[in-house]
Amino acid sequence: MAPVNVATSAGQYPIHIEPGRLQRIAQSVPGNATRLVIISNPVVDGLYGAVLRQALAPLGKPVMTIIVPDGESFKSLDTLNTIYDRMLAEKLDRRAVILALGGGVIGDMAGFAAATYMRGIRYMQIPTTLLAQVDSSVGGKTAVNHPLGKNMIGAFYQPVSVDIDIDVLRTLPAREVSAGLAEVIKYGLILDAAFFEWCERNVAQLVALDADALAYAIGRCCELKAQVVSEDEKETGLRAILNLGHTFGHAIEAGLGFGTWLHGEAVACGLVQAAVLSGKVLDLPAEDIERVRQLVRAIGCPDVAPDLGQDSWLDLMQGDKKTEGGEIRYVLLPGIGQAVVQAAPLDKVQETLEETVGNVTIERESARARETIASGG
Amino acid sequence: MAPVNVATSAGQYPIHIEPGRLQRIAQSVPGNATRLVIISNPVVDGLYGAVLRQALAPLGKPVMTIIVPDGESFKSLDTLNTIYDRMLAEKLDRRAVILALGGGVIGDMAGFAAATYMRGIRYMQIPTTLLAQVDSSVGGKTAVNHPLGKNMIGAFYQPVSVDIDIDVLRTLPAREVSAGLAEVIKYGLILDAAFFEWCERNVAQLVALDADALAYAIGRCCELKAQVVSEDEKETGLRAILNLGHTFGHAIEAGLGFGTWLHGEAVACGLVQAAVLSGKVLDLPAEDIERVRQLVRAIGCPDVAPDLGQDSWLDLMQGDKKTEGGEIRYVLLPGIGQAVVQAAPLDKVQETLEETVGNVTIERESARARETIASGG
Ligand SMILES: NC(=O)c1ccc[n+]([C@@H]2O[C@H](COP(=O)([O-])OP(=O)(O)OC[C@H]3O[C@@H](n4cnc5c(N)ncnc54)[C@H](O)[C@@H]3O)[C@@H](O)[C@H]2O)c1
Ligand SMILES: NC(=O)c1ccc[n+]([C@@H]2O[C@H](COP(=O)([O-])OP(=O)(O)OC[C@H]3O[C@@H](n4cnc5c(N)ncnc54)[C@H](O)[C@@H]3O)[C@@H](O)[C@H]2O)c1
Ligand SMILES: [Zn+2]
Ligand SMILES: [Zn+2]
Repeated sequence: MAPVNVATSAGQYPIHIEPGRLQRIAQSVPGNATRLVIISNPVVDGLYGAVLRQALAPLGKPVMTIIVPDGESFKSLDTLNTIYDRMLAEKLDRRAVILALGGGVIGDMAGFAAATYMRGIRYMQIPTTLLAQVDSSVGGKTAVNHPLGKNMIGAFYQPVSVDIDIDVLRTLPAREVSAGLAEVIKYGLILDAAFFEWCERNVAQLVALDADALAYAIGRCCELKAQVVSEDEKETGLRAILNLGHTFGHAIEAGLGFGTWLHGEAVACGLVQAAVLSGKVLDLPAEDIERVRQLVRAIGCPDVAPDLGQDSWLDLMQGDKKTEGGEIRYVLLPGIGQAVVQAAPLDKVQETLEETVGNVTIERESARARETIASGG
Repeated sequence: MAPVNVATSAGQYPIHIEPGRLQRIAQSVPGNATRLVIISNPVVDGLYGAVLRQALAPLGKPVMTIIVPDGESFKSLDTLNTIYDRMLAEKLDRRAVILALGGGVIGDMAGFAAATYMRGIRYMQIPTTLLAQVDSSVGGKTAVNHPLGKNMIGAFYQPVSVDIDIDVLRTLPAREVSAGLAEVIKYGLILDAAFFEWCERNVAQLVALDADALAYAIGRCCELKAQVVSEDEKETGLRAILNLGHTFGHAIEAGLGFGTWLHGEAVACGLVQAAVLSGKVLDLPAEDIERVRQLVRAIGCPDVAPDLGQDSWLDLMQGDKKTEGGEIRYVLLPGIGQAVVQAAPLDKVQETLEETVGNVTIERESARARETIASGG
């Protein structure tokens, strides 16, 4: 398909979505790059590092690789420092270009390294998880976590290109596919009722990684995200709707400890919680809430939230970046395909928590059971 | 005087230059700020923190103060982390506004904290050293140091306002005044021959902190810097001329260890070295080189560089952010009031080092002697 363009204050950049894009990555490398720095983790580098380096070789530019440990818990200021150390020890200059090869963890952290190395160098996003392909690699939100909150330290800093190779999803664990599909659903819910319906009809194909279904869904998500980002690059308004399910989701991630639930799993559950709250605050019809719950289940994600204790829940949600003057702001759905950002009465939030929080342990087991089913089928 | 305006990609902001501005600081605080965070050090907070907090009190907004240790060696990722820790522990949201009260160390670090806290919150520059008033507070270059290089980790991130109170310079140590005057001279050298001559004629008044002379010089420097920044916010071209003397200066700072020489002292010496190199590469007349040297001496700064060893010098200059593809780029003067950025033949650089490097110890003693004289007079 033709590249999707993202317009930003600093010009525009393309998103290429193609099977086998990794082999053609050289087309995206800026001509005046002095050196290339691949940032990846052992898993992804092991699977695709060699292919990438081979595809870059004809450019004749020096390529170095920085491997950081795999996992959300390493998306930290400490890991970031090790990246700075390596880059400075290698005397990389301002014309060096970073290639972020991996999921959202690598993309967010490598992007933030690019944003802050010598006050900003260029970087390319090469997302290898579904979540990163439909969400985190597009739009220039970069960050690392802090013990007191997820993504608390970061910058808005756009890549020079996003290269999405659909083929790499074949090696992705089924649980990660499910987590990525949570963000796919999100786009339908906030912006495009027809796309939400398409997801309902094609959920089996998506879960089975059918190439055509994936290409369509990834393309549509990137188009929708590109539109939102182009209208509101710095998240001063519209862009906040992309956080549907994330106020609840972030509380789950932080409350259980980062990495216990996958980001997408927490968001999926948060979508259900946001829908339930939307029912109470904006009269979202019960059957629409049920559709959200059913689709979250169909993609293999948890629809019951862990019990963090009522006070912890509120405290954790308070730390959300949408909070203003101490007031928690939620993305809510007046209907499927429409979203608004607003505060919600405390009693409605408490009711929502009472109705959506259940037994975590059981939830985790059923998630694992689903994973086994999905990867077996 | 009327505020100087700085135009940037994200809108424009004012620089207010007035005696007693600190008492009127409330005029600059954004109306929708939820909370105010003063970042300062024990020295400056001890002198001006109470005045500032008193001036903010009528706004009725919660004010917190974060005190970090004084000195260039604390402009580090470690100190930055302690700032993040405090801000997150206090649950500051995206509408909080940082007030950077101090010299360039505080301004650069607080600015970078603002650039990266929750992907960017607003900040106000309240510079209290001459160097910060004429240079570092204007233009949005924020950073912290890394053991492998000065200002290596940072961002371009503009403040919402710059408030310059000339009165605060009365408590500034004479050595710091001299260091700040080095940057003042720099503006004349790169952009404004008439202003350079004005500095030559008024150097005694400047060193003696004559209020009218200071107001004129600070205003002119801010105008010149605002022009350059407005034309080239991200330092992709023109803005690099502001680094006259800085390639040599940074090598001195890094070579001796940050904080041994003041930034402005190193830059002053670098101005002389850049002038000598300009003589060799661009035929800057010998009498102009001599004028630079004399004015550097007259402001009480070193004009002889420390002996770091020829190899270390080149190695340290190599690490400069202007370096591209391993080639060191220098700001050079075809004449006083004009600047160009270009590479220089290695033998000319080596000759320059041979002619400008001397005995550090003696130099440091004479610097101290001058300080005693200046503060006595
Ligand atoms: N910047 C944004 O706008 C944005 C949006 C959403 C999420 N995020 C962030 O994204 C992160 C989550 O990203 P994620 O879900 O991609 O997790 P991730 O980056 O941790 O990747 C998940 C796992 O899959 C592995 N993996 C990656 N690609 C693979 C492949 N092709 N084959 C096999 N294994 C592969 C990884 O090594 C990892 O173990 C979170 O930190 C979240 O905050 C950012
Ligand atoms: N961002 C930029 O564009 C830019 C430009 C030039 C320099 N810089 C940076 O600025 C820093 C140097 O700044 P600096 O020279 O202001 O040093 P500084 O911030 O260390 O201040 C110098 C000393 O003066 C003290 N002080 C500050 N105000 C005072 C006052 N009114 N009275 C008494 N004492 C006071 C400070 O506590 C400190 O001990 C360097 O880190 C340099 O990299 C940045
Ligand atoms: Zn997400
Ligand atoms: Zn300087």
